Amino acid sequence: MIRICIASKGDREGLARMFRQELPEAEVLTDPAATGDAPVPYIVVGRPDPGTIASVPGVEVVLSLNAGVEHLLASGEVPDGMPIVRMVDDGLARGMTEWVLAQVMAWHRNILHYHRIQPEARWAPERERLADERTICVLGAGALGTPAARALAALGFMTRVWSRSGGAVEGCEAFGAEALGEAVAGADVLVNLLPLTEATRDIVDAALLARLAPGAFFVNGARGAHVVDADLIAALDSGRLSCAALDVFRTEPLPKDDPLWRHPNVLVSPHVAAPTHPGPAVAEMAANIRRHQAGEPMHNVVDRAAGY
Amino acid sequence: MIRICIASKGDREGLARMFRQELPEAEVLTDPAATGDAPVPYIVVGRPDPGTIASVPGVEVVLSLNAGVEHLLASGEVPDGMPIVRMVDDGLARGMTEWVLAQVMAWHRNILHYHRIQPEARWAPERERLADERTICVLGAGALGTPAARALAALGFMTRVWSRSGGAVEGCEAFGAEALGEAVAGADVLVNLLPLTEATRDIVDAALLARLAPGAFFVNGARGAHVVDADLIAALDSGRLSCAALDVFRTEPLPKDDPLWRHPNVLVSPHVAAPTHPGPAVAEMAANIRRHQAGEPMHNVVDRAAGY
Ligand SMILES: NC(=O)c1ccc[n+]([C@@H]2O[C@H](COP(=O)([O-])OP(=O)(O)OC[C@H]3O[C@@H](n4cnc5c(N)ncnc54)[C@H](OP(=O)(O)O)[C@@H]3O)[C@@H](O)[C@H]2O)c1
Ligand SMILES: NC(=O)c1ccc[n+]([C@@H]2O[C@H](COP(=O)([O-])OP(=O)(O)OC[C@H]3O[C@@H](n4cnc5c(N)ncnc54)[C@H](OP(=O)(O)O)[C@@H]3O)[C@@H](O)[C@H]2O)c1
Repeated sequence: MIRICIASKGDREGLARMFRQELPEAEVLTDPAATGDAPVPYIVVGRPDPGTIASVPGVEVVLSLNAGVEHLLASGEVPDGMPIVRMVDDGLARGMTEWVLAQVMAWHRNILHYHRIQPEARWAPERERLADERTICVLGAGALGTPAARALAALGFMTRVWSRSGGAVEGCEAFGAEALGEAVAGADVLVNLLPLTEATRDIVDAALLARLAPGAFFVNGARGAHVVDADLIAALDSGRLSCAALDVFRTEPLPKDDPLWRHPNVLVSPHVAAPTHPGPAVAEMAANIRRHQAGEPMHNVVDRAAGY
Repeated sequence: MIRICIASKGDREGLARMFRQELPEAEVLTDPAATGDAPVPYIVVGRPDPGTIASVPGVEVVLSLNAGVEHLLASGEVPDGMPIVRMVDDGLARGMTEWVLAQVMAWHRNILHYHRIQPEARWAPERERLADERTICVLGAGALGTPAARALAALGFMTRVWSRSGGAVEGCEAFGAEALGEAVAGADVLVNLLPLTEATRDIVDAALLARLAPGAFFVNGARGAHVVDADLIAALDSGRLSCAALDVFRTEPLPKDDPLWRHPNVLVSPHVAAPTHPGPAVAEMAANIRRHQAGEPMHNVVDRAAGY
């Protein structure tokens, strides 16, 4: 008997119903405080309250509903050696790719600029560029960075990707760990899709932003703690950056009094770039449970040492 | 000796230099009032003043710098039987495709909506859809409609195209002349890329807009006279349409007192969707002059009966 406990916030019963359909042979529990004494090898979590994982008996695998698991690693709630499987699903990758394209294309074609001058009834054509006149650098070439970079390249942008390994991405110029400075040099658009680790925290700082083209556009779809907010605001104020589109923040929801809300050249979105879609997410988790049951390696297991 | 007269507005000398590079054997003139008596078989025009074409001796071919030539046809300045070659170049197609994608993606991912509520510092995630949950209908599958529709389909949108012939476009559902009602039925986005002819004037009216999905988005990159403005404004006011992005207008520049400037759900851009890029444009025209000199059929000759 496979036992699964759904310990996430939100609609547990909805997820349980989907799990029962995917794995009819499983017992699916929705209250981590009332699982009984029989072991529950699989626990599904988002950002669990302290003690939740320890309170469930016999957990072998932690299945995360999120792609980013830095909070699970930092909390120390998951014992060493217990695999954490993070969420990688096609809906997530498509959602992020579409969000990045929306931000980049809107900036590329001056949508907000024309919207801003519209109340003046001013007919003032800009010199419009073609995509192949713009250079974009995508930080991170993982589950989300790779499809986003590939889609930008397919639209004709000169696209670079930066990752630890420097692995190739179709249509893009690839840069490895040591070449961050070259990867971002002169870029018109910087897109951050890195995981949050000790090595990537605060990576978007004054020095990095100073290497971009004057008037560049910064897009953050990854994590707020990648960015030194004061440096970002200074770069916007000096004109080094023309605009920043931010979906993620150090504190979420972004506090009412945060200056980012009120900065004229910041676009705030409320962490909507790539929502987890329950259907595909449950299908991915069920497939990993089947692999684990069959003694096969699971997909998307987090590398605890690397932090992602 | 090939003689060419540049009779467009704007930088004639710049165009002449490019022509001399492409066709070193040609004599390139830049003043239609001073061509002398020798015949000038090729005239390059934008929107010529009345009498310009007739004033140049021996014109055989009119080369238009614009993709849309409805004003040349309506003016009666081009004698029957004289070929009009319109502008079709790769930069034009890419520019329009990028502009359409920018408008569609920005609406699809609620960029303006979040921008609008940002001053309230309100963290309010919308249910974000994936592209494959949206249906887009593109009117016109010509030089610009075809690449735009193909690009929308490649991003995952359920894409339909409507044209006279109903010819196939990769990844799209194609509808022919009689099937306009079906083509637009329930569409979330309507993109107009038709040529302006007697058959397409005023085509975007109350009846057509009423067939779209509630809260649909209208994108006009073609010509202002395709749209019955009063019907468009009524559809925006009733909520039938949530937004309209308009690049073209009955009168351009759009008059200061036009209500479109001030409508909260209209995005005005100043005819910037697909500017003609002089380099590729001159290369296209020179290639057609070479074909004509060699007695071969020219490309992109306007069908005077069809009006495009
Ligand atoms: N806004 C939202 O709605 C949303 C939704 C989902 C996810 N996210 C966030 O999106 C981000 C990307 O997620 P993902 O699933 O694509 O992550 P991922 O698959 O783990 O991506 C890892 C990529 O980053 C590179 N990388 C890691 N550490 C690096 C370092 N120190 N230096 C250089 N490159 C490094 C990796 O290099 P290698 O290729 O060499 O390993 C890899 O290319 C995460 O921060 C996640 O939390 C946001
Ligand atoms: N905003 C800008 O910056 C900008 C720049 C350039 C052009 N434009 C405008 O963009 C528009 C499209 O240009 P284009 O070069 O793509 O035009 P095109 O190549 O002539 O496109 C014609 C398309 O429209 C279809 N069509 C024509 N009459 C029709 C009718 N009565 N019913 C149904 N379908 C009909 C044709 O059908 P078939 O395939 O059966 O022939 C064809 O698919 C034009 O209005 C042009 O003026 C705007």
